[in-house]
Amino acid sequence: MSKYVLPQVAASAGYVPGEQPTGNEAIKLNTNENPYPPSPRVLAAMAAVTPEQLRKYPPPSARTFREAAAQVHGVTPDMILAFNGGDELLSVAIRAIVGPQDAVAFLDPSYSLYPVLAEVQGCRQTILPYTINGQDWRLPANIAQTDAKLLIIVNPNAPSGTFEPIANLRAIARAFPGVVLIDEAYVDFAPESALPLVKELPNVILLRTLSKGYSLAGMRFGYAIGPAELLRELEKVRDSYPLDVMAQAAATAAISDQAYARETWAKVVAERARVSAALRALGLALPDSSSNFVLAQLPSQVRLDVGQGPQTLTGSAAAGPIYEALKQRGLLIRYFRLPRLTDKLRITIGAPAENDRLLGALHNILLSH
Amino acid sequence: MSKYVLPQVAASAGYVPGEQPTGNEAIKLNTNENPYPPSPRVLAAMAAVTPEQLRKYPPPSARTFREAAAQVHGVTPDMILAFNGGDELLSVAIRAIVGPQDAVAFLDPSYSLYPVLAEVQGCRQTILPYTINGQDWRLPANIAQTDAKLLIIVNPNAPSGTFEPIANLRAIARAFPGVVLIDEAYVDFAPESALPLVKELPNVILLRTLSKGYSLAGMRFGYAIGPAELLRELEKVRDSYPLDVMAQAAATAAISDQAYARETWAKVVAERARVSAALRALGLALPDSSSNFVLAQLPSQVRLDVGQGPQTLTGSAAAGPIYEALKQRGLLIRYFRLPRLTDKLRITIGAPAENDRLLGALHNILLSH
Repeated sequence: MSKYVLPQVAASAGYVPGEQPTGNEAIKLNTNENPYPPSPRVLAAMAAVTPEQLRKYPPPSARTFREAAAQVHGVTPDMILAFNGGDELLSVAIRAIVGPQDAVAFLDPSYSLYPVLAEVQGCRQTILPYTINGQDWRLPANIAQTDAKLLIIVNPNAPSGTFEPIANLRAIARAFPGVVLIDEAYVDFAPESALPLVKELPNVILLRTLSKGYSLAGMRFGYAIGPAELLRELEKVRDSYPLDVMAQAAATAAISDQAYARETWAKVVAERARVSAALRALGLALPDSSSNFVLAQLPSQVRLDVGQGPQTLTGSAAAGPIYEALKQRGLLIRYFRLPRLTDKLRITIGAPAENDRLLGALHNILLSH
Repeated sequence: MSKYVLPQVAASAGYVPGEQPTGNEAIKLNTNENPYPPSPRVLAAMAAVTPEQLRKYPPPSARTFREAAAQVHGVTPDMILAFNGGDELLSVAIRAIVGPQDAVAFLDPSYSLYPVLAEVQGCRQTILPYTINGQDWRLPANIAQTDAKLLIIVNPNAPSGTFEPIANLRAIARAFPGVVLIDEAYVDFAPESALPLVKELPNVILLRTLSKGYSLAGMRFGYAIGPAELLRELEKVRDSYPLDVMAQAAATAAISDQAYARETWAKVVAERARVSAALRALGLALPDSSSNFVLAQLPSQVRLDVGQGPQTLTGSAAAGPIYEALKQRGLLIRYFRLPRLTDKLRITIGAPAENDRLLGALHNILLSH
C-alpha cells in the first residue's frame, strides 16, 4: 500500500477484467464478445490508414465517426461523443457529475466496474438491489427517489441479460432530478433502445459500444448519445485525443455497415434461443436474455462429475468447480464470487460450434438431467 | 452551462488542442509531431493484426509492450505502465494522488493541459513561475518546499524547449515529500533522461510517449516508468482496457526498433540547430532547445509585412498577425495567448523542406533583418 496515493485508491482492489488468454486455443464465452469477425469494410478502412495519419495527431473530436453515428441514430452529431471504450464514458460521467459528498447510484448485481469507479473517485455509492424472484429481475420501487447525482442502469442488464421496458425508464428519468446514464452496451441484441429518451429529456445519456454489436472489442471504441449541452461538459473531462486514427477508421466503417452488423445480431439472437433451451433441458434455470449472454442458475442440489467421480453439491458449491472443469476443457465462461451470483454462471453466446462444445461439456459434467 | 455537472466542470473552458486540419495540404509545425513516418516494422506489425484480434478484448496490461519497453530502459516490466497517450497518465496521476483539499504543482509557462486537469478534478493548483531572464529559463528556488501532493515538471519543458539537468531534478525529488512526475514527452531529443531517478527514489514517475519520438501521435500511446508499487496504484485508477490491439502492436514494434527511431531523432536535432541559427539571423531570440520545437521570441519592435504593407508593431502585437500570415500560406505554428508567451511563437522542427518553407515565409514577413 503506497503512502503517495489517496486513501480510497490505496484501499481499492481495482477492477479485475475477465481472463484474456493470449493463445487462440480457448473458446472464449467469458467476456461477451461477438463471435463473428468485424465487417469486411472495417478491415478495408483500417488498411487504408496511411503512415502520415499515424504520425500526426488524430482528429480530436472524431467528427467523421460522429456524423456517421448521428445518421444511424437520427440525431445531430453534437449529440454523439466518442470515448476510448464505454468504460471511459463511465469514468468521465462520474468525474463530471459526482462530487466527493455526492452519490452515484447503480443496481446490484450489475456491471462490477461501477463500484470500483466510485471507490476510486472517493464518492458515495448508493447500491440499489434488484428484486430477484426466481428468474424475474425487477428494478426496485422508488428508484427515482434515490439520493444520487448520477443513476446508472444497464439495459439489458449484465450479468442477468434481463430487459427493462423503455416506458419504465422514461418514468424514472422524468422523476429523477440528476442524470440517468443508461448503459446500452448490449442493446443491439435487445428488442428496443432508450434512444427516444435522449430527444425528450435533458438528463438522459446512453452508453453505446462497438465492442459487442460491431465485433470491435479489440479496438476500444464507445460513445455517448445525449443532449448536446450535457455532452459538451463531459468532453471537458474526457482526454483531448482519446481515439486513435485506427479506432476512428474502424468504428466509422463498422457503424456505417448496419446490414452486416444486424446479420451478426440476428445469428446471435437465434443461437441464444437454442442455447437457452438446451441449458434449461440440462436442469439450469435462466431469465429470458435480451443480451448476447445468459445467466444460468444451478439447482439447489447438483449431481455432477468434474473429473473426480460423481458427487452432489449445492448450487453455490458447484459453480466454481464447474467453471474450473470447463476451463480445463478449453472453455472459458464467467463466474462471479459475488452476493446472489455464487450459484450462477454467465455464458456468452458464441458461434454455433462453440455453443455445441459448451453444451456437450456441460452434458458430461452435469449428471442429474 | 449545465446544472447537471459539478461547478468546477461547468466553469472550466476545457482544453483546446492545437489545430488538426483534416486535409493534407498544410505544413504542420504546430503540435510537435515527428516529421518522419513510423518505422517500417510498425506498419508490418499493424498489418499482421487479425480480425480475430479485433473481435476480442485486447491484453489489458499490454504485457508484450511492457516487456519490450522494460528491456529498452533496463527496468523490470512492472516498472512500466501503458496509457492511452501521455495525457491519460497525467489525468490518472492527478486523480490517484491529489484530493479535493490537496494541490498539484506545476511550472508556468508549461504544458497548458495541467491547469485544465486540475480545474476539472476540483483540486488546488500551485503554479510555480519559471524565472525567465532573457532566454534563460530556470526553475524557481525552493521548488521542493512547495505545498503539493504532486509536482509535475516537463523536461525538456514545453513550450520553451529548455532542459533542466538531472542532478537538479534528483535534488528536488529527494527533498519533495510527494510524487514528482517528470513529463519526458520530448526527452528523445534531449541530452539525457531522468531514468536513473526511478531506480533510486520511490516517488519519481517518468512520462513517456510514442507520439513524438516514435512518430505515432495518431495511435495514442504513452507510458509511465516508475516504482512498481506506485504504478500498481495508478493502474487501479486507469481504465481497464485502455490500449487497443492496434496501438499495442504499433507501440511494441516502434519501441523495439530503436535504431530507426534514433535516426529520426538525430535528423531532427540536426535540423533544430540549422533552424535555430536561421531564426536568430532573422532577428528572433530563442533559448537553446533540447526538444523538437523552438520558442522564438520577437523583438520588442518588429517591422513586418503580413500582406497589408510594411508596418511596425510591438512583439506582442506582432505575434498574432505573423501566426495568421503563416497560416494563410499553409504553415501552421503555435501561438499561445497566455502570460509571458504573447510575444513568442512555438515552432515544431519539421523535415528540411518544411523548415525551408517556414524560414522562407518568415523571411518575407519580417522586414527588419
